[in-house]
Amino acid sequence: MEMNSQSQEKSYMASIPSKLHEFIKKIKKIGEEDPRRIIHSTKVGLALTLVSFFYYFRPLYDGFGQAGMWAVLTVVVVFEFTVGGTLSKSINRGCATLLAGALGVGAEYLAGVCGEKGEPVVLGLMVFSLAAVSTFTRFFPNVKRKYDYGVLIFILTFSLVAVSGYRVGQILELAHQRLSTILIGGATCMIISVFVCPVWAGRDLHFLVAGNIEKLAAFLQGFGGELLACGGDKSSKDSSGKNVEKSFLKGYKSVLNSKATEESLANFAWWEPPHGKFKFNHPWKQYSKIGALTRECACLIESLNINTKSLSPASEFSAKIRQPCVEMSTESGKALAEIAAAIKKMRRPPQSVEAHVQSAKSAADRLRSVLQNSSLPPKPDLQDVASLLVAASVLIDVIRCADGIAAAVGELAREAGFEGLKTTEAAAAVNRRGIVSPVDDGDHVVVEIQAAAADSPEKKIIST
Amino acid sequence: MEMNSQSQEKSYMASIPSKLHEFIKKIKKIGEEDPRRIIHSTKVGLALTLVSFFYYFRPLYDGFGQAGMWAVLTVVVVFEFTVGGTLSKSINRGCATLLAGALGVGAEYLAGVCGEKGEPVVLGLMVFSLAAVSTFTRFFPNVKRKYDYGVLIFILTFSLVAVSGYRVGQILELAHQRLSTILIGGATCMIISVFVCPVWAGRDLHFLVAGNIEKLAAFLQGFGGELLACGGDKSSKDSSGKNVEKSFLKGYKSVLNSKATEESLANFAWWEPPHGKFKFNHPWKQYSKIGALTRECACLIESLNINTKSLSPASEFSAKIRQPCVEMSTESGKALAEIAAAIKKMRRPPQSVEAHVQSAKSAADRLRSVLQNSSLPPKPDLQDVASLLVAASVLIDVIRCADGIAAAVGELAREAGFEGLKTTEAAAAVNRRGIVSPVDDGDHVVVEIQAAAADSPEKKIIST
Repeated sequence: MEMNSQSQEKSYMASIPSKLHEFIKKIKKIGEEDPRRIIHSTKVGLALTLVSFFYYFRPLYDGFGQAGMWAVLTVVVVFEFTVGGTLSKSINRGCATLLAGALGVGAEYLAGVCGEKGEPVVLGLMVFSLAAVSTFTRFFPNVKRKYDYGVLIFILTFSLVAVSGYRVGQILELAHQRLSTILIGGATCMIISVFVCPVWAGRDLHFLVAGNIEKLAAFLQGFGGELLACGGDKSSKDSSGKNVEKSFLKGYKSVLNSKATEESLANFAWWEPPHGKFKFNHPWKQYSKIGALTRECACLIESLNINTKSLSPASEFSAKIRQPCVEMSTESGKALAEIAAAIKKMRRPPQSVEAHVQSAKSAADRLRSVLQNSSLPPKPDLQDVASLLVAASVLIDVIRCADGIAAAVGELAREAGFEGLKTTEAAAAVNRRGIVSPVDDGDHVVVEIQAAAADSPEKKIIST
Repeated sequence: MEMNSQSQEKSYMASIPSKLHEFIKKIKKIGEEDPRRIIHSTKVGLALTLVSFFYYFRPLYDGFGQAGMWAVLTVVVVFEFTVGGTLSKSINRGCATLLAGALGVGAEYLAGVCGEKGEPVVLGLMVFSLAAVSTFTRFFPNVKRKYDYGVLIFILTFSLVAVSGYRVGQILELAHQRLSTILIGGATCMIISVFVCPVWAGRDLHFLVAGNIEKLAAFLQGFGGELLACGGDKSSKDSSGKNVEKSFLKGYKSVLNSKATEESLANFAWWEPPHGKFKFNHPWKQYSKIGALTRECACLIESLNINTKSLSPASEFSAKIRQPCVEMSTESGKALAEIAAAIKKMRRPPQSVEAHVQSAKSAADRLRSVLQNSSLPPKPDLQDVASLLVAASVLIDVIRCADGIAAAVGELAREAGFEGLKTTEAAAAVNRRGIVSPVDDGDHVVVEIQAAAADSPEKKIIST
């Protein structure tokens, strides 16, 4: 019996290193996913140590005592991952404390007038009604979004002041002490948050939206390739490269559930001062609009992905439908990819986006005419054609969606005052499209631009 | 000039009543949307008043002072809308305070050993490292979900105790005081939250998931009707009833973004004790599974809705496709509606669900054979047929999804130990299907059940 439990213990002890190893791997993964998390943790530690020491070494308020506590409390509660979060909480906390403190003093004074017997009744009534009304306001969507924490602190401070039982004179002194400590705590957080490796919610939102569009683009471009492959040689599909490509086609899934993150980032971004290329009054609301369109597009892609899992091998007729489908998919994908790249660089989307959308649309028109005019074989395998038709139909909607995204991003670029692409960058962007071959002949770069909508290629010479 | 500003002021004053009216209407709307919000607000006021009075009238700790403050603070911070939220925060707060307090005393003792010069250094290092490490653990998904608030309070309490500068004896006394007040505050919240009109997160989650399935069902049943209408008489579509029906068809949209709410409710539900029909160890995780399938289905419906906005008028061939489509839509809608009703009543989904799914599947099979065998007109208007084909193809996926939901709900019913339908309810459920006509002849209810899969109707007599 004892032997058994000993051996159990032994095997348990033996499993510890592997468990520890797994745990460390997990920690590493979380840190590697976003190294700013490690920096944030150190920042919190730093802020807390600073504030603690400030009070530890100050004999002003007999040792640590009442007041310093509020500074530590403020730092712990207020320091958030993003600058916007920290600012929002600090400002909410400061203003709410001030307002509730003033109201509390008024309440205390009023209760004092009512005599010794009336005082607790009046105070109780006021605490009850203020707490109930304030709690109810937290259900207002606007309040919930921006001032939820402020209302909480408002209720807290008012109750503390009103029930403290101090006289007005004492309260004022206490309020001064408490406000100053909250200010010191809040200021420490804000300064460290803004100046030491800041994490801007606005910047995160910007790149989240761009990244989501990029994921859609990756899918559409990859999907076009898949369509082409399943029409032509099957060998490329069965190669070992397939799995890699498939995981590439699943990236859009995370877009579907991005709304909550986007909303909270947009709320925090509202509080942030101008930073980097994000100026004062940056149109944060526009990102929600783009985000909604992106999710709509992701939804279409989801149904595209589900519907066309089993694409049939090529027949003569399906080849006619397949070709425009491939073009619709890849061209709208290219348009989205260029939009995403433009957002990331904070530039206006280039002209070529419009060209890609146009060629996608003309492919759709071609498809329509194929459907109207082509003669079918006497007994077409309609079921085989059906899944291609579905893909075509969904792709037409995807093009419409991509067009909407382009328009919304254009509006964002206008409102935020993004600049257009510089000529060299325009050339590079065009180069990325893969249909041009730049020839460097010393002073000039000769770029052949094949306008996707027009037929004749034109040559441009750009001085470098 | 003065006249002008006076008249401006007048018009401003005149607009106040209408603004006030609007504001009151808004408040009313928020209250009416969920009357429990008003009750919750009153509950918070009540808890706060109770705790305040407890300390106001207790001369034990000279007036209000240090300790009572923590009770008020706890009530304000801990009281959440749902029981699960309140319990989660209370328990987190209590445990974290206890643990951090003990660690803090240890740290204080250790620092004391290091002499007067070493003390601040050791304390500072400990506060820094503990705060940094704890903050980092908040990025662990598991910790974030359930113990985020606890970690926050842990950092807070440890810092407060470690930097307080008190000797160990003093700290123990303080800790006792503080813990007891937190206990009183937390217990007040928990008792009021659980026993006064409780808002159970688990119950909300349960009905949210059921409601989402119901919305999908409403769309599918309505969509079947729309398809039928656009095939037959156009008049019904253009009548004034159209707008009502259309808003009815938009209900599913909210399902798409329900993930965040569902997740937070599931997290809170985990903390709740058994209540009503929700027993200990209720399979809360299963709801996330059902929710994910529901959202997948909603995504399909979204593309269905976008794709088939312009359904073409009837041709001879399209009528052949339309008929099975209508059946696929309405039958899968009926299946989902019965599943939703069963969830709401906490019953096992009835047998008829399977029958509806089967008849939807057989409609899909019929459609496939139509596509394979029917002879097309020499030049079919493929484009017109295309949007119907798309609807058909998406509906096939919807059926698969509905089947998945039925299986997941069946699993939930098994794990949670839901009972089967009672015979009378079964009869009522069958009645709701609309293909039977119960005849009440006194003692017996004669119900004609037309099994959707089989062809011959059978009669059953159920004693009432």
